[in-house]
Amino acid sequence: MTERIQEFLRARRREGRDNGPCLVVDLDVVRDNYRDFSRALPDTRVYYAVKANPAPEVLSLLASLGSSFDTASVAEIELALAAGASPERISFGNTIKKERDVARAYQLGVRLFAVDSEAEVEKIARVAPRSKVFCRILCDGSGAEWPLSRKFGCAPEMAPRVLELAQANGLIAYGLSFHVGSQQPNPRMWDKALESCANIFRELAERGVYLQMVNLGGGFPTRYLKSVPKVRIYGNAIFRALSKHFGNRLPETIIEPGRGMVGNAGIIEAEVVLISKKSDDDPLRWVFLDIGKFNGLAETTDEMIRYPIRTPVDGAAVGPCVIAGPSCDSVDILYEKTPYELPVSLEIGAKVLIEGTGAYTTTYSSIAFNGFPPLEAYVI
Amino acid sequence: MTERIQEFLRARRREGRDNGPCLVVDLDVVRDNYRDFSRALPDTRVYYAVKANPAPEVLSLLASLGSSFDTASVAEIELALAAGASPERISFGNTIKKERDVARAYQLGVRLFAVDSEAEVEKIARVAPRSKVFCRILCDGSGAEWPLSRKFGCAPEMAPRVLELAQANGLIAYGLSFHVGSQQPNPRMWDKALESCANIFRELAERGVYLQMVNLGGGFPTRYLKSVPKVRIYGNAIFRALSKHFGNRLPETIIEPGRGMVGNAGIIEAEVVLISKKSDDDPLRWVFLDIGKFNGLAETTDEMIRYPIRTPVDGAAVGPCVIAGPSCDSVDILYEKTPYELPVSLEIGAKVLIEGTGAYTTTYSSIAFNGFPPLEAYVI
Repeated sequence: MTERIQEFLRARRREGRDNGPCLVVDLDVVRDNYRDFSRALPDTRVYYAVKANPAPEVLSLLASLGSSFDTASVAEIELALAAGASPERISFGNTIKKERDVARAYQLGVRLFAVDSEAEVEKIARVAPRSKVFCRILCDGSGAEWPLSRKFGCAPEMAPRVLELAQANGLIAYGLSFHVGSQQPNPRMWDKALESCANIFRELAERGVYLQMVNLGGGFPTRYLKSVPKVRIYGNAIFRALSKHFGNRLPETIIEPGRGMVGNAGIIEAEVVLISKKSDDDPLRWVFLDIGKFNGLAETTDEMIRYPIRTPVDGAAVGPCVIAGPSCDSVDILYEKTPYELPVSLEIGAKVLIEGTGAYTTTYSSIAFNGFPPLEAYVI
Repeated sequence: MTERIQEFLRARRREGRDNGPCLVVDLDVVRDNYRDFSRALPDTRVYYAVKANPAPEVLSLLASLGSSFDTASVAEIELALAAGASPERISFGNTIKKERDVARAYQLGVRLFAVDSEAEVEKIARVAPRSKVFCRILCDGSGAEWPLSRKFGCAPEMAPRVLELAQANGLIAYGLSFHVGSQQPNPRMWDKALESCANIFRELAERGVYLQMVNLGGGFPTRYLKSVPKVRIYGNAIFRALSKHFGNRLPETIIEPGRGMVGNAGIIEAEVVLISKKSDDDPLRWVFLDIGKFNGLAETTDEMIRYPIRTPVDGAAVGPCVIAGPSCDSVDILYEKTPYELPVSLEIGAKVLIEGTGAYTTTYSSIAFNGFPPLEAYVI
């Protein structure tokens, strides 16, 4: 919680604009985070994962600081361009693209594309000639709080064929990417993936295909309830792993922080709508907020991300609560399997602060579920 | 699939407007569904659950047919009024309401409110005097495909106290409600809940509080892959249960169909973006569509709702697929635990039709996740 956010929220209340939940993002924190990434990995280019928070002010700040951008769609490419990024600083990092979207990105000047299959290489070869492609490989994301599925990436054994096909079709077989899982608390998880990458570099070099780049992905955590290692610790671990597996022929590297860049820069203010019990002997209180899974807190699915929640009566005696959202949807429950301890003196109408909500909140909001508007957001 | 929807989609393709996924809802099907509900339960008022699909055309049609409306928020109340419903045909059915939203609903003329706690009764008593309230009770929703959590309703033992408090505070203790779970395939599930209701009616009558109404909730299924009983079968089972538990002093009844009213009226057309395998020996193909959990198909969470998917090559040999959405989010997978059989000859770029998507799709769409726009929708 920064002083600037506190002052903003006080003004919002004074002016009576506090009629629904809102996110406030402090750009000073984003600036600090960018600097930390640059210092922790000085030879690595930062591609901010636009999907984490595409607010124009965030993108403009990062563009001015020298960041590049990892994008998931043509709309995100256009946002990055509008924020002042030149097209050579933009990666179209989604491995699932319509051919006409690849063509549009190419028209806009983008020349760096992610792939994980031969079919995707063929699309890019047809409409984005001579572009660079990198192949995403599957890697073990165990330990991550938001572990990734098998959706992105191919088996490491398949990657050489995908990249050879790219080279054979006039594309530049540029490198590899992997992702150790979002909110990854273990800096050593990069080691095994980098070993796979080095093997593929060697295998392809023997066939005359020389890769140049390793995309180290994201995964850098933000602080929720538990402490996480500082980004410097990640930088050191990654540098050691690179040296171990690539010797003195280090590849170009890029990282794609999203949550790690903006997560701790944002705070959501929400309101307690109702506190009730389901029966007289219910050991739990149900605390209903005016924000839930469908208007900003989608990442509480399966209770994976556990946000810190501050109340006006922190410090008082606490008791276990189920926390739920305001919609008429029975799955709109934030924390139930592991109840959340909140002050017993918390009252209906109180404002609570949900910390670490700068990433993956605004754009996840549903457009009008149950008639509730998407999450309001302010960047200061 | 209706002839009108087919013709609409053909025209959309001819005109080159088929650039992203879209939902098409056929009002003729909604009209038939309304008639079926009215005939199946002739003495029961229909309160359409606006959250299922709040398209103005759907609301206007239902208002003109005589439907009443179950709403979750002030915004939904305003939509129902705009569609031509008078306020006495509107129920504010969310048990979680800000006091200022109750006040606004009262200003708009609404006089029927759901509660499940004493705190909610107190809010309504303060700002919506002399209104009718009904208390939602928890009931067993086992067997439902979208089973409800404990989020809404109180233990039946608590309901008399909640309703007595309402009466003591100048409100009209009007009745009870329950919900047997969305997409409930078993018409007999209403029986046990109605037994609870009859007991509460008797208990309160002994204390001089005379309830008048039972809200039978929703739960009426729409047809996805499996056949479901016709609404007439539900009507008969409910009528038998009412007679069994209330004898010849039948209460007023209302139902709140949402999915059952609009689910089968809608079809989503989507496009195959990519088909790939994760490794050479992968027994599964991955089929990526341009629609996923975040732009319309949220109800595939935990693979609960399994939509029928039609392809241009239906009838050809099939093989198992994982089906996933287009976003860079690893949880955006529709069906994986139970793979989906699709034709082996299905190709990238093909259009597929996802049936039974008239309910709980458009408004669940995220506003801009990954830069993808919310689901386009047409009502014809």
